[in-house]
Amino acid sequence: MPTVNELLATGPRATPFDIMRSAYAELIVTDLAASEHFYVELLGFVVSDRTEDALYLRGWEERTHHSLVLRVGERPAAGCVAFRVRSERDLALLEEDFQRRGSPTRWLEGGSLGMGRALRVWDPFGFPLEFFCEMSQFETQLQRFDLHRGAPIMRLDHFNLHSPQVEEGVAFWLDMGFVCTEYIATDGADERFTGAWLRRKPTVHDVAFTVGRGPRLHHLGFTTADTVGVLRCCDQLAAAGYAHLIERGPGRHGVSNAFFVYLRDPVDGHRIELYACDYYTGDPDHRPIRWSVHDARARSFWGALAPDSWYEESMPVLGPDGEPVEIVDSSVDERTARSEVMA
Amino acid sequence: MPTVNELLATGPRATPFDIMRSAYAELIVTDLAASEHFYVELLGFVVSDRTEDALYLRGWEERTHHSLVLRVGERPAAGCVAFRVRSERDLALLEEDFQRRGSPTRWLEGGSLGMGRALRVWDPFGFPLEFFCEMSQFETQLQRFDLHRGAPIMRLDHFNLHSPQVEEGVAFWLDMGFVCTEYIATDGADERFTGAWLRRKPTVHDVAFTVGRGPRLHHLGFTTADTVGVLRCCDQLAAAGYAHLIERGPGRHGVSNAFFVYLRDPVDGHRIELYACDYYTGDPDHRPIRWSVHDARARSFWGALAPDSWYEESMPVLGPDGEPVEIVDSSVDERTARSEVMA
Amino acid sequence: MPTVNELLATGPRATPFDIMRSAYAELIVTDLAASEHFYVELLGFVVSDRTEDALYLRGWEERTHHSLVLRVGERPAAGCVAFRVRSERDLALLEEDFQRRGSPTRWLEGGSLGMGRALRVWDPFGFPLEFFCEMSQFETQLQRFDLHRGAPIMRLDHFNLHSPQVEEGVAFWLDMGFVCTEYIATDGADERFTGAWLRRKPTVHDVAFTVGRGPRLHHLGFTTADTVGVLRCCDQLAAAGYAHLIERGPGRHGVSNAFFVYLRDPVDGHRIELYACDYYTGDPDHRPIRWSVHDARARSFWGALAPDSWYEESMPVLGPDGEPVEIVDSSVDERTARSEVMA
Amino acid sequence: MPTVNELLATGPRATPFDIMRSAYAELIVTDLAASEHFYVELLGFVVSDRTEDALYLRGWEERTHHSLVLRVGERPAAGCVAFRVRSERDLALLEEDFQRRGSPTRWLEGGSLGMGRALRVWDPFGFPLEFFCEMSQFETQLQRFDLHRGAPIMRLDHFNLHSPQVEEGVAFWLDMGFVCTEYIATDGADERFTGAWLRRKPTVHDVAFTVGRGPRLHHLGFTTADTVGVLRCCDQLAAAGYAHLIERGPGRHGVSNAFFVYLRDPVDGHRIELYACDYYTGDPDHRPIRWSVHDARARSFWGALAPDSWYEESMPVLGPDGEPVEIVDSSVDERTARSEVMA
Repeated sequence: MPTVNELLATGPRATPFDIMRSAYAELIVTDLAASEHFYVELLGFVVSDRTEDALYLRGWEERTHHSLVLRVGERPAAGCVAFRVRSERDLALLEEDFQRRGSPTRWLEGGSLGMGRALRVWDPFGFPLEFFCEMSQFETQLQRFDLHRGAPIMRLDHFNLHSPQVEEGVAFWLDMGFVCTEYIATDGADERFTGAWLRRKPTVHDVAFTVGRGPRLHHLGFTTADTVGVLRCCDQLAAAGYAHLIERGPGRHGVSNAFFVYLRDPVDGHRIELYACDYYTGDPDHRPIRWSVHDARARSFWGALAPDSWYEESMPVLGPDGEPVEIVDSSVDERTARSEVMA
Repeated sequence: MPTVNELLATGPRATPFDIMRSAYAELIVTDLAASEHFYVELLGFVVSDRTEDALYLRGWEERTHHSLVLRVGERPAAGCVAFRVRSERDLALLEEDFQRRGSPTRWLEGGSLGMGRALRVWDPFGFPLEFFCEMSQFETQLQRFDLHRGAPIMRLDHFNLHSPQVEEGVAFWLDMGFVCTEYIATDGADERFTGAWLRRKPTVHDVAFTVGRGPRLHHLGFTTADTVGVLRCCDQLAAAGYAHLIERGPGRHGVSNAFFVYLRDPVDGHRIELYACDYYTGDPDHRPIRWSVHDARARSFWGALAPDSWYEESMPVLGPDGEPVEIVDSSVDERTARSEVMA
Repeated sequence: MPTVNELLATGPRATPFDIMRSAYAELIVTDLAASEHFYVELLGFVVSDRTEDALYLRGWEERTHHSLVLRVGERPAAGCVAFRVRSERDLALLEEDFQRRGSPTRWLEGGSLGMGRALRVWDPFGFPLEFFCEMSQFETQLQRFDLHRGAPIMRLDHFNLHSPQVEEGVAFWLDMGFVCTEYIATDGADERFTGAWLRRKPTVHDVAFTVGRGPRLHHLGFTTADTVGVLRCCDQLAAAGYAHLIERGPGRHGVSNAFFVYLRDPVDGHRIELYACDYYTGDPDHRPIRWSVHDARARSFWGALAPDSWYEESMPVLGPDGEPVEIVDSSVDERTARSEVMA
Repeated sequence: MPTVNELLATGPRATPFDIMRSAYAELIVTDLAASEHFYVELLGFVVSDRTEDALYLRGWEERTHHSLVLRVGERPAAGCVAFRVRSERDLALLEEDFQRRGSPTRWLEGGSLGMGRALRVWDPFGFPLEFFCEMSQFETQLQRFDLHRGAPIMRLDHFNLHSPQVEEGVAFWLDMGFVCTEYIATDGADERFTGAWLRRKPTVHDVAFTVGRGPRLHHLGFTTADTVGVLRCCDQLAAAGYAHLIERGPGRHGVSNAFFVYLRDPVDGHRIELYACDYYTGDPDHRPIRWSVHDARARSFWGALAPDSWYEESMPVLGPDGEPVEIVDSSVDERTARSEVMA
């Protein structure tokens, strides 16, 4: 296992392929109509398309066909997290890369709504990833303020993953060309990651890790225009009788400077973060910010404790066989990982 | 004519009656359906009631039946501005007071939607005023954030009147028990008012004067929750294709500290101010703030000039015969009155 | 003991005296310099005056000499909560009223910084109250935005008291001419108050009760301009290393619609609420809003639990002998009182 | 001269060098102390360094040594606009590129405060550009909310240039690898640009053109955290007696969705835009948005007219000889260019 210092000293790999950004996630939901009520009526996602068993959603700023796919299944799960690459050539290079790693790879040829073909792979830890380079576009609705509802949700920002092997996970994503922008680590000689934030687009992250049992999807982060939008969403949810869906916040993270609120969807418990106040990270010599696990401000700049559920609950991910990937314990002791909230 | 100093030295009269606050206005509109689109669909007023020829509206915080009545007529006009008094007894005392002044008075007995009987009078300058003490109530919708639209508009705050005789007007309202909280005046020995703000409820005003041809209604001021609501309303109007209805602002007034925007309704040109950031004025020894007419910050704290229309255009008011009251010129020279914007 | 229904049916008494509003509080602090750092440097109160053993503070909107007095003493305590009355005559009438009740009364003659003489009394439950009608004034600093620091704090809004006898307390304040605007009560036949909000000025409250051991001062509520100011204050406190002073929030109360945060001063633990989004309550027939103690939204519209300290900790008040008044248990079971947070 | 359609059909060139982003500007000021008062005391820039004749400033989010250099000179002017490139190799390739164009090039070797060596060139239209790849870094102050002043200003966002040859200018920047995200154009067969926005980092722009006499620097755009920060800056400037420095706004641009205000520095008239509400533009197939010059919403989404000064006044730029570059008229008729504001 690489050490934190080794990982950060090495930095990202110069890759032959160009992964551009986190692009969409597929969530398996058990009741599409009930999910539509939450994501569309309450949160205000824009409906791009629908089929008998799936709903294709996007934020108000997004022109690409979807950043969230809700697909009906028997049990709630995360189907995949998907990344946009620059060109078809990148897809071929990524296939090679994953085949060399011995990962399962699979092509989803055309026909997928609004997209060109996609490469579905499973990373060494069991997370289902997808890569694609073509997606159809809509006219922007950014300035249709008269139609905005909810926060409103502007665009997908990132995926947050619950992983028992954060060092190995970080090593993998650095190898994919990602850059570490912030991390939380234990103190002392045997420094271990308890959280790590990695980016391709020049924001704080496209992918983040929270140490814990996994592989599981912790949450999807969507950008709102400002802090006021986050508050408005809380007011609207509570007014409509859904205050119990507000799991944590609103508040500010030390890490990433995010003004956040975490919501749980009422049917399957998928976790959505509304997220504002990110910053620019694109400079090549941009150094990662280290937070001690004992600094409560990393997770909660204002000091409010996260509820247990936020640390413990997460969504299983689907394996190549369509069944949930087995969940394993974390190599970092759970108490250590949460010492940040007990300081 | 009393001087500014005499007026302010005398202060408000101890009245036998208790006028509590500005309560509602009646606007004559020429196309009720088109007006409903603006006030309800675009601005987000709550519909309390409707008849064949009138629409009764209120803000989201208001429980009383209406703060705005739109009534169909042949020509746009202001029907009346109405004040709530504490009790029936106050109505009788006000009738006496106005009869003593030789003002036309008239009782509107019951039957009026959502109200007890009302006393309609015309003040010495021709403005149609109404007083009442009973109005039916709805449950508050303040916290139905999920239903809020537009700014949203919370409650009626004040009436602003275009008047050629501001000193006499101020004297009249002081005589009604109102308190002057702020004013704009010419400099030098022959000090004249060019604007005055008068209150009963402990905000900056229930009634204000802008010097100019009159009697005319300059605007109705409605409170929004915060500055962000004012901006959101502008965004929504523009997105829906109604940017041309934004006459002035958004910006901040020096007077009253208001964060404001002025809108003109698309059918008849009635002017609505959205208004935030008022302050408490209830102390008995609260001294009025004086602004020089040459201090541009009085009208525009940030310096942006108001368009000519804002100074020149206003709505005729209806007389006892149902016809528009004759409009006369201001005794203060128009150039003087506007020197504030040319500084 | 009067029942909730009896109290609300009777309503406020028509008093011969006119208490206008909550005006200032005196807190006993053990380290004046350290307190000044918190209240002035971190929160941004304006210093009006200082003596060897006291600091006189006000908000940015306030013109009156002070709304908060910090006075040095051996142990932290609440010295008094003070109300402004309309005239000298009201003071004499209040003296009579309290003498008739058998309450200790005492005149603080002139000399007090920035004030005329004041009547200090102890109410039937041991709370030290003060009434006065004269206070010197400063120029407003409302629009000295360039000097604002912290939230900024605009003005004192209310006092919140921990009281074991809420029904009796409400009866007392109704007798003082106060109006009940909102309350939390147990369900069922034997309905009991667990919280009550009472006002003179037309906001939600000047005085509120939280049921519990008392008499104790729960907190002082100060108005900020908007929700954004509350968030900025949290950010500034945390950035300066004082996140641990944020006891609860930010969040929204169902009661009063307040967007709030509760802070504890770092030396003595006095609790300060920053408060925005109040509403107008001045109509004579304004009906109180009832919340069930089992409706968690009353205390926390978005559902976040208050920490134990917020329910349990409060400040002793000083009796006529200058010693803390004895604290007694609540007649409403503590578990009942908090059932709102366990729903 | 290339047509608009030809330019947009061709798109950006695949360049051998990698210009990463707009990075800093040098302004020539005539009174350094007075400029410091405006930029540091009023706007809240962070001082990174100072020499006898220059001040090095940055925003609160920025870690790199400076994004604004104020350098003393005899007449106000723009010294250069500077871009960060990925590596030393890019600098060499850029030198070749500009030499091939016949442009003056010059190396500023080390010694420059906080920077590695820089390549200064003059583009075909006379604008002084600079390229560099190394700049020393500070710790981030993003979360030192307790120290923030002014808006606060977060980071440099873009340069806006007044140019008589917008088509040629756009062609040049596409050739540098920039992407056009939005533009304003005349209608009809002979379509001409009146404004164009071009980016490298995935925001709306790093460089924009406003058609008009040039070469001149129209303004520097700096990002603020949100709309509220822009309003706060206006309030603070006005409160401090500097309302006359607010040239235009606050308001919203249709182009770029910016919530903006334009300020003029009080000594030399340099124009600073505070800018919020940008959006993500990084997708390779992100299509530019076209606005008609007759659509007033392009420049002013809410309809308020820009003052003449905003269209006419701009800052001369310095040539290789240190003297102002000669200013020439626009090939697009001035009336056409401004028809957008007369619609």
